[in-house]
Amino acid sequence: MKILVTGGNGFLGRPTVRLLASAGHEVHVADAAPAAPVPGVTAHVADLHTAGAELIASVRPSHLLHLAWHVPPGEFWTSAENLRWLNTSVELFRAFAAAGGRRWIGAGTCAEYDWSEGGIFAEEAPVRPATLYGAAKASVHLLVGRLGAQLRVETAWARIFFPYGPGEPAARLVPSVIAALRRGERARTTAGTQLRDFVFVEDVASAFAGLAESSFTGAVNLGTGQAVPVRRIVGTIAELLGRTDLLDLGALPTRPGEPECIVADVTRLTGLGLAPRHSLEEGLAISADLRQLGA
Amino acid sequence: MKILVTGGNGFLGRPTVRLLASAGHEVHVADAAPAAPVPGVTAHVADLHTAGAELIASVRPSHLLHLAWHVPPGEFWTSAENLRWLNTSVELFRAFAAAGGRRWIGAGTCAEYDWSEGGIFAEEAPVRPATLYGAAKASVHLLVGRLGAQLRVETAWARIFFPYGPGEPAARLVPSVIAALRRGERARTTAGTQLRDFVFVEDVASAFAGLAESSFTGAVNLGTGQAVPVRRIVGTIAELLGRTDLLDLGALPTRPGEPECIVADVTRLTGLGLAPRHSLEEGLAISADLRQLGA
Repeated sequence: MKILVTGGNGFLGRPTVRLLASAGHEVHVADAAPAAPVPGVTAHVADLHTAGAELIASVRPSHLLHLAWHVPPGEFWTSAENLRWLNTSVELFRAFAAAGGRRWIGAGTCAEYDWSEGGIFAEEAPVRPATLYGAAKASVHLLVGRLGAQLRVETAWARIFFPYGPGEPAARLVPSVIAALRRGERARTTAGTQLRDFVFVEDVASAFAGLAESSFTGAVNLGTGQAVPVRRIVGTIAELLGRTDLLDLGALPTRPGEPECIVADVTRLTGLGLAPRHSLEEGLAISADLRQLGA
Repeated sequence: MKILVTGGNGFLGRPTVRLLASAGHEVHVADAAPAAPVPGVTAHVADLHTAGAELIASVRPSHLLHLAWHVPPGEFWTSAENLRWLNTSVELFRAFAAAGGRRWIGAGTCAEYDWSEGGIFAEEAPVRPATLYGAAKASVHLLVGRLGAQLRVETAWARIFFPYGPGEPAARLVPSVIAALRRGERARTTAGTQLRDFVFVEDVASAFAGLAESSFTGAVNLGTGQAVPVRRIVGTIAELLGRTDLLDLGALPTRPGEPECIVADVTRLTGLGLAPRHSLEEGLAISADLRQLGA
């Protein structure tokens, strides 16, 4: 396949691009941010809002993996920038179809589901996003699904749960706790009793690569199916770094309305042979630079 | 209230605008198509895609009733024009919020629901549109709902079932059967066994006006709750016009995949005191010019 990865220099994009290239595919990256070259990958630095359609018309990929969104930690939930990404996602899809594209894979989010109750979400669960970000993602899924049916392009939609790992933006939970403990500072967190489905970024990358290679269409959850209390994440990092003395669980108040449990039903992902392989301990050890990938 | 009605010169818009004006509200219409003036209504002829936000900033309405979409019979289901209307709907909402708007009412569709099985749809039924039109509408509902929560603007979303009545585009079922029979031509239709929820346009207008005046937020079905076989619609028209001899039910094949039953659960609408008041016979008699409104 000839695959174009938008946002290919981002947290999820970079390991995915590496995997796709090492599998022998012709890989193109389109990203507004330049990055160190990946061997065998053609990099295009482009503003996808204004130049993305033209780029697609010139590259003419058979596959499009669309990962580019506006995701600065915290801010992204309510940012109107993701309304722009909604439009651009649809326009890039139309340009892809017009250029003879055959298969499209998009990055959805568990925030499309109804978090008011929380729980273990299967793909057929109601889509009731509580945030503009979740609404924009859910809209792209609806629109591209229907456009794909009209234009005869296969579409798959991966709803990502809580990814972590190397390359993660520094303000997010895992890297910020690692950084604090490495500096010998106290890691102040909430009580962390809420259950989340944390998925290692390399497993996300493998699943994206596998989805690109498959003929699966529709929505699929991208998580582990494991309900892990946030305090266990933080505690495992502290143990790995030998600094449990610096943990301050409960120092921060739990956000009001924070759902107790957000976990993926991974029956569909497992059926595709794309279930995550790294344990939480392995993933966190690699994130903390205590182990190498593949070691 | 000072209310701006987009698409106010259209099939649903015109009777709604008349009702709002006769109730004493300050009514503004924004529509790309000019139309005969309605007493007491300020008309703005404008391309809403390019000039709508500016118009809203200048009118500064307290209420926005957004009816404008791309709805030429048949074509609208798959037209990419409705992707443009999705964007414009969201941008007009943002302009409305920025101009101090308090309450927004949008026109949704029963085509947001899952038609693969058909049935009687309550508002909480899964949103699984089979068409690009339904997907675009459902997206606006998701996006404007979340934007409204962020920007503190009330939002209500009316999912319209199958409207008919005076002013309906000529190519649609009711006016085309009326026109054929009046010309003394045979009315060739499908067998018409499928059940649909046909709602008279004046009842749609009353519900929109009532929704504008209420403080209801969220989604509400706009139908009658009556499951009427399409053959009964056609048969009633023929009886009203005394031309049952010209009926040719079953002359056209039923479209493959046509759902058997699409009917609204109107519990919510009825609870708001906005349930339709015209019987099918009354609505069709008015549509065929055999009775006057209010007679």
